[in-house]
Amino acid sequence: MGRFIPLSVPNFEGNEKKYVDDAIEQGWVSTGGAYITKLEQEMARFLHTKAVAACQSGTAALHLSLVEAGVGAGDVVLVPTLTFIAAVNPVKYQSATPVFIDCDDSFCVDPRKLRTFCEEECGFLDGVLVHNGHPVRALVVVHVFGNMADMEAIMETAGKYNLKVIEDATEALGTYYTEGKYKGRYAGTIGDFGCFSFNGNKIITTGGGGAVTAGSSKTVEHLRFLSTQAKSDPQYYIHDEVGYNYRMTNLQAALGVAQMEELPEFIRRKQVNYEQYKDEFEGFAYAMLMPFREGTSSNHWFYSVLIDRARIGASMREIIAALGEEGIQTRAIWGLVNEQKPYETEETYQLEKAPYYAERIINIPSSTQITKEEITYVADKVKQLLGSLAGNE
Amino acid sequence: MGRFIPLSVPNFEGNEKKYVDDAIEQGWVSTGGAYITKLEQEMARFLHTKAVAACQSGTAALHLSLVEAGVGAGDVVLVPTLTFIAAVNPVKYQSATPVFIDCDDSFCVDPRKLRTFCEEECGFLDGVLVHNGHPVRALVVVHVFGNMADMEAIMETAGKYNLKVIEDATEALGTYYTEGKYKGRYAGTIGDFGCFSFNGNKIITTGGGGAVTAGSSKTVEHLRFLSTQAKSDPQYYIHDEVGYNYRMTNLQAALGVAQMEELPEFIRRKQVNYEQYKDEFEGFAYAMLMPFREGTSSNHWFYSVLIDRARIGASMREIIAALGEEGIQTRAIWGLVNEQKPYETEETYQLEKAPYYAERIINIPSSTQITKEEITYVADKVKQLLGSLAGNE
Repeated sequence: MGRFIPLSVPNFEGNEKKYVDDAIEQGWVSTGGAYITKLEQEMARFLHTKAVAACQSGTAALHLSLVEAGVGAGDVVLVPTLTFIAAVNPVKYQSATPVFIDCDDSFCVDPRKLRTFCEEECGFLDGVLVHNGHPVRALVVVHVFGNMADMEAIMETAGKYNLKVIEDATEALGTYYTEGKYKGRYAGTIGDFGCFSFNGNKIITTGGGGAVTAGSSKTVEHLRFLSTQAKSDPQYYIHDEVGYNYRMTNLQAALGVAQMEELPEFIRRKQVNYEQYKDEFEGFAYAMLMPFREGTSSNHWFYSVLIDRARIGASMREIIAALGEEGIQTRAIWGLVNEQKPYETEETYQLEKAPYYAERIINIPSSTQITKEEITYVADKVKQLLGSLAGNE
Repeated sequence: MGRFIPLSVPNFEGNEKKYVDDAIEQGWVSTGGAYITKLEQEMARFLHTKAVAACQSGTAALHLSLVEAGVGAGDVVLVPTLTFIAAVNPVKYQSATPVFIDCDDSFCVDPRKLRTFCEEECGFLDGVLVHNGHPVRALVVVHVFGNMADMEAIMETAGKYNLKVIEDATEALGTYYTEGKYKGRYAGTIGDFGCFSFNGNKIITTGGGGAVTAGSSKTVEHLRFLSTQAKSDPQYYIHDEVGYNYRMTNLQAALGVAQMEELPEFIRRKQVNYEQYKDEFEGFAYAMLMPFREGTSSNHWFYSVLIDRARIGASMREIIAALGEEGIQTRAIWGLVNEQKPYETEETYQLEKAPYYAERIINIPSSTQITKEEITYVADKVKQLLGSLAGNE
């Protein structure tokens, strides 16, 4: 076996085993337990937000947010298309209808197109934005790959049209603004709801797991209530609402508490590694390393290489397969959500950048364990391959 | 602190820590990993069924089953009311309408009432059972407290009217028929779908977790596909259906594999302990220990004491509080689902036994760690209390 450099794998250098063993020894492994509370507190502290509810996945966090935002059958929700499909599926769970808005060069929703959609494609009646006769209730903003959307412009439009803003900060845990109106504010803490995922490939992991935050502690409390089967009286099984089985378990949370201890170090490494990749790709003719939004401190979760399609015609599958043979795991951006079968008849709005980037971006290895030597190896092989592909054109 | 005898707590006497540590050491904690496959195989072997898909909860298993059964907006699903609300909520998730059918003396759906509902309250048109203009697609059968419903009669009616049968075998893992048409068949393997939960209070636990089985391996494969975000091409993010984030994690599954090793011993202890309780309550005037269905071997998950309401007027809350003061944790049966706010306007059919039992049953401690001495203590205190309450009337 030659070398294998994975795209993004968990890193358990800390107290993971210790805390998980402790949870088992105490017999607290299910949806109650001290690690859940501790994880929620540590996350709230880290994000400088009031309260956090730990749940079972990022998908669950998004679904709970839509429920809490009052999104139901017949409503419209504005969503991105350049994202993992799980950011959009909960709209369908609520029998609502997505409308796909294009992204900007940060891969996140384009605030200008968002505004013109609201202005030109909708009416605004009695405080409700209406599109083709349906109320537009909410907007899902995904902070892609560690980037952060232009929240200042987005919040202005959302405020004007009474849209609930659901931030999917799954890929941007730790990203924050360093300037502007939201200086010091973290991804996930600016909109009405902020959603996080701790899936295996994320910057920290609880196996599967997620979290949701909101503007007020009371709202977070209600999200937590909904996630635990909405027990108005837990002892006598009285339920005043339809609930969900979306609570994080103490076993997962034990892992999460250990991971939170390491998060600042993980971010530091990702930033250092990004800088090395940047140096390696400096001046390279056929591809560039994508920057993160100015005015933010990114968690640098994923590194995106933009391929020059004027010079390189090879398909993503060819490129990824060729790098795989060198022991380098890479991936293409997602298949655009609006092109997937369940969504292919849904409305889109001015999609240009999303399909542009979908054809041009590959993500390269970004685990926190990657060594300097491995980064150089990855960059060299990527450059060699693209150089030879460009030569073949 | 005096003694405290819990109602039902997990038992980690086996390889739990060893397997969980192994999963962490290998870095496989998320929705992929060898323990998930092993748990699925061990469950399939135990249940003598073809295949099992491990998922995130019993609620998830039920929801996936409804989706797979084709239940959608406007459909009717027949459900029990004497059960935990999570068995019914997924019907709402699918925008379908529940109709509540009464139980028999096993606490499970009454097959005679099921039949007369189909015969007298519905039409049968082109192979579709229709109630008030809505197709009746499915029936959720909950095997309550380790009991098993009268599956022979139920399957006959379901077959006649093309109803999909979803067995919620969450509380009856290991219960099987010892005679009759389904001799040797386990709870969850007779209907179209079988759902299981490994929540913290169940006979085995994975923290949170569940599993679903179905009549064919192909159907189980599709349930698994739906539970993992319906990735038609996982590498290039192509999705042909709306999926869910419902997969069990390898961390949970590691716990589950260890628990499956112990399951036969847990069942043995629960049976032995039940016999001791039975002896203790033999001949007692004010309450009796409920039997399990004849012709089955029950897992004896929960022990139910039936209070004689002709002699004892005290409320459940009073009884449970008084036993709590003796260090004995007990619980009332659930608030009937049809009486909960989200369901109070839904249709019910001949509810008699369900409200009867809801007023009369308390569950007494049933953990596998309970000692003989503790069982005697519990029985003595329950009898003393009920005796004194009867004396006060």
